Amino acid sequence: MVLDIEEFRKAGYAAIDQICDHFYSLQEQPVVAAVEPGYLAKLIPGSPPQEGEPFENIAADYKRCILPGITHWSHPSFFAYFPTACTFEGILADLYSSAVSNPGFNWICSPACTELEVIVMDWAAQLFGLDKAFLNSSTSGGGCLQTTASESALIAAVAARNTYMDSHPEARHEDLVMLCTTQTHSLALKAGRVLGLAVRTIDVDAKDAYGLRSEGLAQAIADEQAKGHRPFFLIATIGTTSSGAIDNVAEIREVVSGHPDIWLHVDAAWAGVALSLPEKREQLFLADINSAAKSLCINFHKWGLVNFDCSTLWVRDRLTLTQALDVTPLFLRTKEAEAGAVTDFRNWHLALGRRFRSLKLWFVLRSYGVEGFQSHIRKGIAMNDVFVSLIKQSKRLVLAAPPSLALTVFRMAPAAWQKEAEQVKIEQPAVSKAADEAVVDAASELTESETPNALTQALWDRLDRRRGELFLTQTSLNGVHCVRFAVGAARTEEEHVRCAFAIIEEEATAVAAEIDV
Amino acid sequence: MVLDIEEFRKAGYAAIDQICDHFYSLQEQPVVAAVEPGYLAKLIPGSPPQEGEPFENIAADYKRCILPGITHWSHPSFFAYFPTACTFEGILADLYSSAVSNPGFNWICSPACTELEVIVMDWAAQLFGLDKAFLNSSTSGGGCLQTTASESALIAAVAARNTYMDSHPEARHEDLVMLCTTQTHSLALKAGRVLGLAVRTIDVDAKDAYGLRSEGLAQAIADEQAKGHRPFFLIATIGTTSSGAIDNVAEIREVVSGHPDIWLHVDAAWAGVALSLPEKREQLFLADINSAAKSLCINFHKWGLVNFDCSTLWVRDRLTLTQALDVTPLFLRTKEAEAGAVTDFRNWHLALGRRFRSLKLWFVLRSYGVEGFQSHIRKGIAMNDVFVSLIKQSKRLVLAAPPSLALTVFRMAPAAWQKEAEQVKIEQPAVSKAADEAVVDAASELTESETPNALTQALWDRLDRRRGELFLTQTSLNGVHCVRFAVGAARTEEEHVRCAFAIIEEEATAVAAEIDV
Repeated sequence: MVLDIEEFRKAGYAAIDQICDHFYSLQEQPVVAAVEPGYLAKLIPGSPPQEGEPFENIAADYKRCILPGITHWSHPSFFAYFPTACTFEGILADLYSSAVSNPGFNWICSPACTELEVIVMDWAAQLFGLDKAFLNSSTSGGGCLQTTASESALIAAVAARNTYMDSHPEARHEDLVMLCTTQTHSLALKAGRVLGLAVRTIDVDAKDAYGLRSEGLAQAIADEQAKGHRPFFLIATIGTTSSGAIDNVAEIREVVSGHPDIWLHVDAAWAGVALSLPEKREQLFLADINSAAKSLCINFHKWGLVNFDCSTLWVRDRLTLTQALDVTPLFLRTKEAEAGAVTDFRNWHLALGRRFRSLKLWFVLRSYGVEGFQSHIRKGIAMNDVFVSLIKQSKRLVLAAPPSLALTVFRMAPAAWQKEAEQVKIEQPAVSKAADEAVVDAASELTESETPNALTQALWDRLDRRRGELFLTQTSLNGVHCVRFAVGAARTEEEHVRCAFAIIEEEATAVAAEIDV
Repeated sequence: MVLDIEEFRKAGYAAIDQICDHFYSLQEQPVVAAVEPGYLAKLIPGSPPQEGEPFENIAADYKRCILPGITHWSHPSFFAYFPTACTFEGILADLYSSAVSNPGFNWICSPACTELEVIVMDWAAQLFGLDKAFLNSSTSGGGCLQTTASESALIAAVAARNTYMDSHPEARHEDLVMLCTTQTHSLALKAGRVLGLAVRTIDVDAKDAYGLRSEGLAQAIADEQAKGHRPFFLIATIGTTSSGAIDNVAEIREVVSGHPDIWLHVDAAWAGVALSLPEKREQLFLADINSAAKSLCINFHKWGLVNFDCSTLWVRDRLTLTQALDVTPLFLRTKEAEAGAVTDFRNWHLALGRRFRSLKLWFVLRSYGVEGFQSHIRKGIAMNDVFVSLIKQSKRLVLAAPPSLALTVFRMAPAAWQKEAEQVKIEQPAVSKAADEAVVDAASELTESETPNALTQALWDRLDRRRGELFLTQTSLNGVHCVRFAVGAARTEEEHVRCAFAIIEEEATAVAAEIDV
């Protein structure tokens, strides 16, 4: 029952119509799929069909069996994790690229795939104000697309390790150590597990808004060196997952300038897209990234309007990547590569084959333009500001850390009467260089008592039961249980933020009534 | 100029129509894009537009700038590398999954994504006749989708290394060694580079049709152990890239049974789909894979009708994977996972986020059915048989190794008069257990003379200039320069094979006339 071209046309139109219906009705759907574990095995046979089936049946089953099990990351009331982009431009690009399915590992696989990636990575670098050293046109540095920030960090770690071992052939693998903070994304620990390398997680303080400072970094390096270990790689984060914390890259730059063997990788997976806003570049340490980072990752597929997956990785020295990863048997040799005329991106990532991801980045940047992209990011920040103002007015809820761009972390206030005293302490995002003076450690003081955690846990349990209406995630900041509110889905408007707050406030009130504090 | 729902509908219909036009005209297009390096930079500005552009312009530029730079892997005369699948069912599934863009790392991200993957991986395991130990329903083993065979092998190596280090905590990283053959895909050397581990490539002989045998393996293990090294991981290949060689897993099984610390990973990336044919299972060592492999990779995105990327990885013990890769911070904890009720696939691969790939596998297996899938594989083998018979009739060309399923490797005969003597030596695919008796080392004898390589190089240079008409790749078998012919694109028919042979024969005749031998 395999589709021919005209049957494909018919099925394709129907798929487009179905997607339109999906987006028209999205707001009425539960945010999180209302299914129980194992639901699908009751709907689908355990073995493949012996004979082919008509495509209408398959499409109908997609609607009947699959869609009810989808959690809607594009839903306007999705505030969990970080947003994952889904734009019509991204969908169309995926459609076009799927129709020319090719593994893109060499230039000759499809010259357009490699050349478009070379060009749009330079577009993106300009959008974010990166130093021209990172541009592909620089011929020394350059960038390409990876699947995820985890893959980007892993690749950077491999390049860093090889660079280190090249200049320290006497070093033992067991002595190498990667550096990150307790707030760094789990990608750091995962890279350590994959590579079999030790990872030192540096403690960070609430008073520094959970960002890495020079003192903590210098101490950790000294500690490790005293133990005979060799720190060779540091992940600094611009916008951590838990609270949007921003490591102080200005101070980090100074510290690592005294340790030229340490490769600085900047993970700006979520917040990096805000570098498109000139007014945010200072607080996101762009100048320091430009002068000190050896590699940088920003995900377009989170807040940046390009459908998953679309993670950028820029490196200051492309040879560090290709020397670490190049394996070229005869069957991969081409006259263009031998002539040095082309880039073969297989030497820039872990696998051999790679998808044609640059097309969706091109479609999105052209359709939105720089100004449209900036408007989207500014809108997310503005909506988060609304949420922050509502939290500040609440008697039951309190900020758990300074708000960061489009992310707010909050928790239950231990009691209504404590609220006022705490609130004054967390006023400004701790992203300016003087932030540490403005922010007092409200959260860590509270760890002396178990009460706030119990209250927040109770709030979380209640909110988790309402995940048909809105979806949030929980986190822990130095032992303090918190709830995260991340805004940035393309269809979220202020009304959805206010509606979300009303639900949170309602449940917080119920918790306070239930648990006597 | 961002698309709204109705504009998307219009642009979506237009995209579907454009894809139909593309497939109607595919056969008239050059196989390999007829563009020079740097062509695209002349067509596209170096910076992103400030303001958004109408989508019609973007779609028009896709046709004007991108399509001429695409090498058509779906072209019926594409015989290079291995085929990369592109089916209408795969395109439609990519379209649907793109519209529910989500990173799928946890069950709750979208229960349908995880549960469909659990189910269709079991469908695929049954399609290939895998032992039930590999099924997700076994609860001890299981499988999931990865991007590529490179990623699958890398993950298997990580799990193997961790398993080994757990039972040998005294082992030094520097002493670990991965085993493969000189014919193993570059993924082995790349995994070694990524992990910083030594790789021992074992020599294989033309008389064994370039497959690994027990003697070579046992000798390599003994050698490494004598040096104080610790072999912990072996990649056996079912269908190598160069010549489709099949490592003798029956003999390998016996050898590794005496070395229980060595993890056997079977890379059947290309040829594994032929396990769908009961009549091929013995020659592909299915029973031995089922009893001895710790992990197995088969790519649906090559010969298996599912659009790139769709690489399966099965493991016999899922805990070896999840113990190696699990990192679970609070923000990734869910009540369903805590209860042990669901699978969270983030612990089965390198990254955190993952795409909804199972949908395309489901669509393809339903639309084709087991029988349709088998017919496609049998058709590829039959067309290769036609090509083999034509080579055997040629006075100028000779098989360089036994034909393997849908892959033939050939080279110039050093002179017409030598042809007959050589031809008799390479009759049967060296995949039966007695193959070594049937196949004599024709190729390695020829390395004594440089002549055949010079002739084949001249042939290759000529064929490479005709890559608008057909696309092939070159390789080297123990120093003998060869040309590869891989069949399996869904639109290839016998006429295209005959036409390809005619071009090859024409160029071979021209070479013979040009170079006096």
